[in-house]
Amino acid sequence: MSTQINRSWQMSGFGLSRLSQTQGKVPEPGPRDLLVRTRAVSLNYKDKMIVDGVLIPDLTFPFVPTSDAVGEVVAVGGAVTRFQVGQRVLGQVIADWPDGDAPPVLHKHTLGSSLPGMLSEHVIFGEDAAVLAPPSLSDIEAATLPIAALTAWFALAEATRPVAGQTVLVQGTGGVSLFALQFATAFGLRAIVTSSSDEKLERAKKLGAWQGINYRTQPAWDEVARELTNGLGVNHVLEMVGGDNARRSLNALAADGRLSIIGLLGSMELSFPILPFMRNRIVVQGLSIGHRRAFERMNQAIETLAIKPVIDTVFGFDEVPQAMQHLESGPFGKIVITTS
Amino acid sequence: MSTQINRSWQMSGFGLSRLSQTQGKVPEPGPRDLLVRTRAVSLNYKDKMIVDGVLIPDLTFPFVPTSDAVGEVVAVGGAVTRFQVGQRVLGQVIADWPDGDAPPVLHKHTLGSSLPGMLSEHVIFGEDAAVLAPPSLSDIEAATLPIAALTAWFALAEATRPVAGQTVLVQGTGGVSLFALQFATAFGLRAIVTSSSDEKLERAKKLGAWQGINYRTQPAWDEVARELTNGLGVNHVLEMVGGDNARRSLNALAADGRLSIIGLLGSMELSFPILPFMRNRIVVQGLSIGHRRAFERMNQAIETLAIKPVIDTVFGFDEVPQAMQHLESGPFGKIVITTS
Amino acid sequence: MSTQINRSWQMSGFGLSRLSQTQGKVPEPGPRDLLVRTRAVSLNYKDKMIVDGVLIPDLTFPFVPTSDAVGEVVAVGGAVTRFQVGQRVLGQVIADWPDGDAPPVLHKHTLGSSLPGMLSEHVIFGEDAAVLAPPSLSDIEAATLPIAALTAWFALAEATRPVAGQTVLVQGTGGVSLFALQFATAFGLRAIVTSSSDEKLERAKKLGAWQGINYRTQPAWDEVARELTNGLGVNHVLEMVGGDNARRSLNALAADGRLSIIGLLGSMELSFPILPFMRNRIVVQGLSIGHRRAFERMNQAIETLAIKPVIDTVFGFDEVPQAMQHLESGPFGKIVITTS
Amino acid sequence: MSTQINRSWQMSGFGLSRLSQTQGKVPEPGPRDLLVRTRAVSLNYKDKMIVDGVLIPDLTFPFVPTSDAVGEVVAVGGAVTRFQVGQRVLGQVIADWPDGDAPPVLHKHTLGSSLPGMLSEHVIFGEDAAVLAPPSLSDIEAATLPIAALTAWFALAEATRPVAGQTVLVQGTGGVSLFALQFATAFGLRAIVTSSSDEKLERAKKLGAWQGINYRTQPAWDEVARELTNGLGVNHVLEMVGGDNARRSLNALAADGRLSIIGLLGSMELSFPILPFMRNRIVVQGLSIGHRRAFERMNQAIETLAIKPVIDTVFGFDEVPQAMQHLESGPFGKIVITTS
Repeated sequence: MSTQINRSWQMSGFGLSRLSQTQGKVPEPGPRDLLVRTRAVSLNYKDKMIVDGVLIPDLTFPFVPTSDAVGEVVAVGGAVTRFQVGQRVLGQVIADWPDGDAPPVLHKHTLGSSLPGMLSEHVIFGEDAAVLAPPSLSDIEAATLPIAALTAWFALAEATRPVAGQTVLVQGTGGVSLFALQFATAFGLRAIVTSSSDEKLERAKKLGAWQGINYRTQPAWDEVARELTNGLGVNHVLEMVGGDNARRSLNALAADGRLSIIGLLGSMELSFPILPFMRNRIVVQGLSIGHRRAFERMNQAIETLAIKPVIDTVFGFDEVPQAMQHLESGPFGKIVITTS
Repeated sequence: MSTQINRSWQMSGFGLSRLSQTQGKVPEPGPRDLLVRTRAVSLNYKDKMIVDGVLIPDLTFPFVPTSDAVGEVVAVGGAVTRFQVGQRVLGQVIADWPDGDAPPVLHKHTLGSSLPGMLSEHVIFGEDAAVLAPPSLSDIEAATLPIAALTAWFALAEATRPVAGQTVLVQGTGGVSLFALQFATAFGLRAIVTSSSDEKLERAKKLGAWQGINYRTQPAWDEVARELTNGLGVNHVLEMVGGDNARRSLNALAADGRLSIIGLLGSMELSFPILPFMRNRIVVQGLSIGHRRAFERMNQAIETLAIKPVIDTVFGFDEVPQAMQHLESGPFGKIVITTS
Repeated sequence: MSTQINRSWQMSGFGLSRLSQTQGKVPEPGPRDLLVRTRAVSLNYKDKMIVDGVLIPDLTFPFVPTSDAVGEVVAVGGAVTRFQVGQRVLGQVIADWPDGDAPPVLHKHTLGSSLPGMLSEHVIFGEDAAVLAPPSLSDIEAATLPIAALTAWFALAEATRPVAGQTVLVQGTGGVSLFALQFATAFGLRAIVTSSSDEKLERAKKLGAWQGINYRTQPAWDEVARELTNGLGVNHVLEMVGGDNARRSLNALAADGRLSIIGLLGSMELSFPILPFMRNRIVVQGLSIGHRRAFERMNQAIETLAIKPVIDTVFGFDEVPQAMQHLESGPFGKIVITTS
Repeated sequence: MSTQINRSWQMSGFGLSRLSQTQGKVPEPGPRDLLVRTRAVSLNYKDKMIVDGVLIPDLTFPFVPTSDAVGEVVAVGGAVTRFQVGQRVLGQVIADWPDGDAPPVLHKHTLGSSLPGMLSEHVIFGEDAAVLAPPSLSDIEAATLPIAALTAWFALAEATRPVAGQTVLVQGTGGVSLFALQFATAFGLRAIVTSSSDEKLERAKKLGAWQGINYRTQPAWDEVARELTNGLGVNHVLEMVGGDNARRSLNALAADGRLSIIGLLGSMELSFPILPFMRNRIVVQGLSIGHRRAFERMNQAIETLAIKPVIDTVFGFDEVPQAMQHLESGPFGKIVITTS
């Protein structure tokens, strides 16, 4: 191995002030593990919630947060057959979910949660929990895929059946939402994007959005969405907020519409009136990222469709606290930290 | 036609006191209509809600309530090809839903709602909105199928994919719930039934229930359901109540579990915590009875499986108010009114 | 009605020489029918097979052939509610298939088969067997949709679940194949097209084809397709030929691949080796055009995706025999006859 | 370990005469492996085809044949977490298929094919390629599940969507067929069984068959099946034979029917007329046993439904040649060899 020292960012307790850089030993791969020299790590809003102690109150310290990384395989365990030294890989965040249904008890093997996170120069992936990074993407771009892109892909392409010509409504312009916008457009769907900023809506249109709704100037965005669809409603809403926002999402839906719950930026609760739910045969589905097979299919599609992840800001490895704080600023796309 | 007079029960306004028997003319079938001499009508809880003015506040009077009837075809319009005089038929309640997705705007053609109801000696069905009654059932039994049985069938056999050996939880012992119990058992599913009465739970077990939970003596019935399934949870819950009950339903569900919303006996609202929803990839689906093709498939299954609807009480045509009141008593199975 | 005379092309027996222009009366719409003044009719290869007596040997004469027409509603029956005079409509070819599963006995109500065909100035559609033509298309373009486009759409978007990034192989450059190419590209799929002409392959690439294979210069086109996909094979093949060609199609397929049988240009038989069929879990599916709901969804997608049908040649109403003969020439796209 | 000697039956070449008992060393489990002391092994017809050199012509010798075994875990590798010493397990035959889609290149890790077979006192299972045996079954019963039961289960419950009341036709009364009969009955399907023996048909009826057809006295069994279903045809046929038999299977199918290819007792080829294939929208699907998740779901169903595998004959470990020969006799159910 090229270095004996492994720099990491570790939480010694909750709060950003207790996240600090440390030096440790490079981990030893087990027989079916990959040792990976990371190149870039991307942040998700849930990383901030974990650092702040909101999402996993019973975390054990020290703990290295974050879940998304791209890197190069620098060593492999003796029983590894799927990868070789020198390949560029991404970690499968729910490490024990290869395909089909998720394991009965989830999050026993999840990167940056029950397993250590990615803010290290060296990390371990099980060989069954890694995929090749798409060759067409830079390290910074590839690092954004494991949670944000796969969540959007799974909601749009795996858990539902997209029918070209249908309408999907994407809330906001964060990382997941912009991937959803890009995928939806590539599938032949009409994407409506909501935002509090006309400027962001303009940028979303350049990425393919069919329509934009400013929910600050038009708080009844659900009614606007209905009007845009001739009163029929949209076929699929990606819910990023929760709480009362989900009531508007329900109202925006067409008959047989689907509401995919993929974010909880605003509330820990969902509530709905029951009658329109039944009358319109609405399906509400909670999602947890996705499985490895979907990750592989997505990467193939990213190559085919020439999709480029939208990067908001790139930070250096010494700027992790600033990067975490930037999560609160409403970034347009992904925040990435380079690690080498 | 054998009679020129058509006796009906009509609402002149809201409230049971304003439901009264009247005599009118036998309706004239249009070119693709069937004129049907009814033999039996079954009640659903929503009929009481309509009579009381709770469900359709903007109803136009006079109005004949109820949706479920079996009868004999006594005349057909000139363009009718699907049925003949003498056949015994059931009406398809959502009359413009033959198969596949429902019409974009539902309830424009629904028996006992936008279309006249069934509490008449003679009623009209469109030929595309009728099915043959299963020969193995009596009139009283067959009359129970159009809403209660089809709702249970659609939730269990059409909108989901039942896998034998899985566990389904059925709330209560009303008409829909007992059909769900009978279908689930016939599909090789394990059915858990909840009730406030040990005696009803015993009767449910005789119908095939794997387990019963008395939610009066065990208010945390969701935890009991988890224990019965070795902590994994049940795969499918048929929600009959709404409100906080749905929170327990969510908690009773296994990973990748499904909650079918088919009743609103307790509340007009649904609310859930968002995190378990996402972590367990729960699907919540609102349902509106079902389409005609499903009705035909169900009738074939009723014949094959020799399923007999559970009848709580049979009333005569002059006893409609008593029958309506009996809906509040917590019947075990269906309430039927004979009309000839 | 604007005219009392209705010009048609009628078969008095089998063979092109027995197809001749006649004058008859304008048909009378029944209570739920539309009378349509046609504007354009498109041909399908099966029309030639019917004229030649190959496809329906027990046809009753006189018979008006062809199935695809666009026209304007000029009168409606008294009970019609879905359409108005003046609207531009397309006929749903399998007239009794609104959605979901097809009727148990097919082709009892099929335009140009059990029902009269479209080579008339005036034709009848049932109101439940018509859809609005997409506003973005000309009459000539719209006339191509009922069989060719809907067959391709149904195979790619309804009977299967397209996953962007996957590979689909389309055989030839006739009407169905070019629609399949255009839809596949719009869904984010990689399309491989086969042809005996390099020039046609070039034109296919301009329409979005990812790769072309000349099966004349490369008869083992299945092996070429495997090489293009890194030895994995393609995910979906649209079979247009049958016979031994289907064996190559099977060999071109990846594990879990699908073969949609939509044409029979070469043979009335299909044969496969059984072992690769089982080892790769291949699905072979026969298709018959599609249902009306799919037609409506497709038209919405055509508008959203701005898809323009590819027209090979347009003939006048007096040139029907020449148009029929042109079917044998291997057209690139559709042949259309204007009727007004 | 309780013994240092491991008795096995090994092929030194093709032909039953070259299958002989040998003694070797007990294998050493790798870090994620289970060492299993077998108790019973079941035979499948393909085992005979492998011994005879028909199915895998390029086999490397010496080779231990057969794929199905139940046994007790007697040692585990250091990294094993899913199982413990003392548990009774079954091997997952396609060892690298946990759920969802199969691996892109199949049969790289298949018991009794690319991996050693089960005719040994001690065998190795990867911990990800084993499931708990259903507690309600004896060793002899449990040994029958890995291929025969899982193939029938996957065809009926996983690759298709069974709808109670529909009709499935099962060919013959071998191991797979009787499991299919038992599962179909438990799912509420009507099962038609074909056989050349009236006596076997009687036994099939005792297991739940709705109808039996003797294809010796009624060679046009497809027409009989159509008559039994009022001319509509059956919804699902499990094809065990191939060749011209598959043509009859196709003819027996109803519109939208499905033909699952799970056996090749009669031919290495499949052939069909193309027109009914398209007109009836037939789906033909090749199957390769099934994945581990399906195995787990099946075992849960076997417990719930109290299904008991049908055993034709039990042989001792010294009687392997006789057991292999008995495969040719047309057994009613499974042939099992005890190994301890």
